Amino acid sequence: MRSLAETRVTIVGLGLMGGSLALALHGQCAVLHGVDAVDETRRVAVGLGVFTRVAATLDAVLAETDLLVLATPVRAIVALLAGLQRYAGPPLAVLDIGSTKAEIVAAMAELPAQVDGLGGHPMCGKATNGIAHAEAGLYRGATFVLTPLARTSAGLVGLGSELAVAVGAHPVVMTAERHDRLVAVSSHLPYLLAASLSLTADAVGAADDGLWAVTASGFRDTTRLAGSDPTVMADILTTNQSAVRAALTRQRQALDEMIARLDDPAALHAQLAQAQAARQDWDARQEAGNA
Amino acid sequence: MRSLAETRVTIVGLGLMGGSLALALHGQCAVLHGVDAVDETRRVAVGLGVFTRVAATLDAVLAETDLLVLATPVRAIVALLAGLQRYAGPPLAVLDIGSTKAEIVAAMAELPAQVDGLGGHPMCGKATNGIAHAEAGLYRGATFVLTPLARTSAGLVGLGSELAVAVGAHPVVMTAERHDRLVAVSSHLPYLLAASLSLTADAVGAADDGLWAVTASGFRDTTRLAGSDPTVMADILTTNQSAVRAALTRQRQALDEMIARLDDPAALHAQLAQAQAARQDWDARQEAGNA
Repeated sequence: MRSLAETRVTIVGLGLMGGSLALALHGQCAVLHGVDAVDETRRVAVGLGVFTRVAATLDAVLAETDLLVLATPVRAIVALLAGLQRYAGPPLAVLDIGSTKAEIVAAMAELPAQVDGLGGHPMCGKATNGIAHAEAGLYRGATFVLTPLARTSAGLVGLGSELAVAVGAHPVVMTAERHDRLVAVSSHLPYLLAASLSLTADAVGAADDGLWAVTASGFRDTTRLAGSDPTVMADILTTNQSAVRAALTRQRQALDEMIARLDDPAALHAQLAQAQAARQDWDARQEAGNA
Repeated sequence: MRSLAETRVTIVGLGLMGGSLALALHGQCAVLHGVDAVDETRRVAVGLGVFTRVAATLDAVLAETDLLVLATPVRAIVALLAGLQRYAGPPLAVLDIGSTKAEIVAAMAELPAQVDGLGGHPMCGKATNGIAHAEAGLYRGATFVLTPLARTSAGLVGLGSELAVAVGAHPVVMTAERHDRLVAVSSHLPYLLAASLSLTADAVGAADDGLWAVTASGFRDTTRLAGSDPTVMADILTTNQSAVRAALTRQRQALDEMIARLDDPAALHAQLAQAQAARQDWDARQEAGNA
């Protein structure tokens, strides 16, 4: 496999993630093409000044591509991979950056022999979506998970790692199954709690608007993830159902134990102190990781 | 009732809330005493230079007090009120700033006739506790809920409002029952979700430390409240059980509806879009409130 500097890269899906990836990759690959179906997105993409070519369809640039980076929501990635099942051109590498990996690597397993597939998931983002919010530093310091298939070439795992490092991220290789199980706890469960809390407060506030006077920074932070793009999140949750259910079952057990202790302040205190210590450990671990 | 400038104020409990209140009240009342049982806390309190006198027990300064402000955790406030049941001195006003109100106003209802009681709850705080983190601006811009009893004098409600405004907060008067029902949703439920999520991640991370590589800002924000003081939180939760259970039941219904839609992306999307809209409405409402 050639090095990143010799690679012609095409990014499909020029939202926050795809757009930021392009800004970060600028000048580090042989050619950089962008593909997006939305006229306005392409207009903004051209204005970024980092693409060799910006096209409405993948077909227009596929022949000039060595590495295809799929940066759309998960279901669109699966559909794009299905579209490559009858690919008959020269060798092609495909890396996706979708947020769940099991369905995507299953679709990659169906690709023809000359298409080399690698799953990827950069652990970054921000509250605002779309190419208008893209920034070159988005990937800096983030973990960039790579989930190879049994058939993935070592060369493509190397190129994926090189790409992750090139945008300032830390590549971490694990199986798709393990990735999906872990992000169900670290990302999907927090989102579900935030979204259900947001809906609960909305219903209570509709009946008694005194609620809005008594909500402050704690509520704001705990519900922040509820502001995530529902299309992206619906794709993520529906493609990671069993891991999400397992994470939720665990969280409910912990919560039920707290609720069972509402009559026993000392026992409740012990459990809350454990939660506090766990949160402080997490903070310390993050600081150590960033040091 | 005299004005704040003519009032001798004693704050019992010199933690983050009591210490910050003292810094904000400095120069705005006739006399400002502080009471705390912990030697080191009193040493720091004296160093703030805002107290007329800092004492280890309330008895030492009670005779020089017109308005007693109880700023300890909830159960300690209830115990302090019980200690005032045989109070036989001159007229005394009592305001507390505990985070739940029903048990406190019930204890205030038992006070002798010359003790005028008023519940209070300033909706502010920060992640770090203790007088070492006290700051004069902590109450600025916050809602300061006042929960009068039927027997509370109009003069004390006025003095409580004056005190709230004097520290930069916005006084809002409501019943203790309504306050407790609303903060169960805006504050206690978010805390329980954060704490149970923190415990869940800790258990999963102990079995697979790959979890820590894939936790990022979403997890951090959603679990932030888990870092709250377990003594304070155990008091809050055990003194607001029925409202906490009702809030939790609502949140579980919303969550169960999401989980039931994991097989139906379109239906799930509709609910997630509703959660996103609710969160955006909340942001807009907060911005309008702060404008």
